[in-house]
Amino acid sequence: MSILDEILSRHSYRGKYKPDPVPREDLLKIMEAGLAAPSGCNTQTTSLIAVDDPEILAKLRAIINKRVGDSAPAMICVLTQRIPSYHGRCFAVQDYSAAIENMLLAIVALGYQSCWVEGYVTDADNKGYQMAQVLGVPDDYELVCYLPVGVAETDPVGPKKKDLQERAWFNYYKSGQ
Amino acid sequence: MSILDEILSRHSYRGKYKPDPVPREDLLKIMEAGLAAPSGCNTQTTSLIAVDDPEILAKLRAIINKRVGDSAPAMICVLTQRIPSYHGRCFAVQDYSAAIENMLLAIVALGYQSCWVEGYVTDADNKGYQMAQVLGVPDDYELVCYLPVGVAETDPVGPKKKDLQERAWFNYYKSGQ
Repeated sequence: MSILDEILSRHSYRGKYKPDPVPREDLLKIMEAGLAAPSGCNTQTTSLIAVDDPEILAKLRAIINKRVGDSAPAMICVLTQRIPSYHGRCFAVQDYSAAIENMLLAIVALGYQSCWVEGYVTDADNKGYQMAQVLGVPDDYELVCYLPVGVAETDPVGPKKKDLQERAWFNYYKSGQ
Repeated sequence: MSILDEILSRHSYRGKYKPDPVPREDLLKIMEAGLAAPSGCNTQTTSLIAVDDPEILAKLRAIINKRVGDSAPAMICVLTQRIPSYHGRCFAVQDYSAAIENMLLAIVALGYQSCWVEGYVTDADNKGYQMAQVLGVPDDYELVCYLPVGVAETDPVGPKKKDLQERAWFNYYKSGQ
């Protein structure tokens, strides 16, 4: 499948996962894809922890509390450091978002499914901080997202999206076309 | 080339471009790839304008003022709408960053090069706003980034990156490994 087809066929998966373990070499490929993303002024603000140890997964699941990807046999936790780059401004959100998108594509390319879980993790009750504590992450990193990784039990269902001509134009903005 | 190899071989290109035009069907494929990215609660906050009209390009170049990608025969301008999604929070930066990463991968897959130009566009002098005015973009959108698109005159040079073990770990954070 071409990369364009891969990009178009990737969708967020919120269903159950099979218990089949994800080999470490695949988790490593996924993390390599993530860290190959560009970052503002090459500041490399994103770091990753792939969790496949059942005991640690159980501790994270206790925090996640039956949310998306709870049954996945592995999980990649996304860490960010809010380091300023271009003209003293910080592009850490852009950096980790590009890394996450690369990982989602790599996950699907390797035959797994996933879902970008961020808002739930960085909400007022700060589950991300609790998860970071379990993983021994120092306070200069923030855990902002987790990606479940595993073989899906069912097919992902793509969301309904606006027509292309409502969001993409040539040469100038066109309202409502 | 597999999607994993594509991801690893993509680098920001800051050199000159050949004048060869980019066919509209390729620009459309690139924009489709961008809009296939996920968005927080499917809010679809990202919109795109592909510019290939020489007169409009000339006006944009006058604003860009000899910056990266100035010689490219086409340019994709990235627009965002700061619409709240999950629990009233806005994930527009995440949304457009994922869309940009998809487009960078599609651009390279189609034989072109590009570079994510954002900080320069959204800096204090707000070149993004000036560019948006040229393109007739309403004020509820922000132009936050442009991606030059074209055939490169030279090969992109990858930046020096930290070793993987300084940014990726299994099961728990490991300092300095």
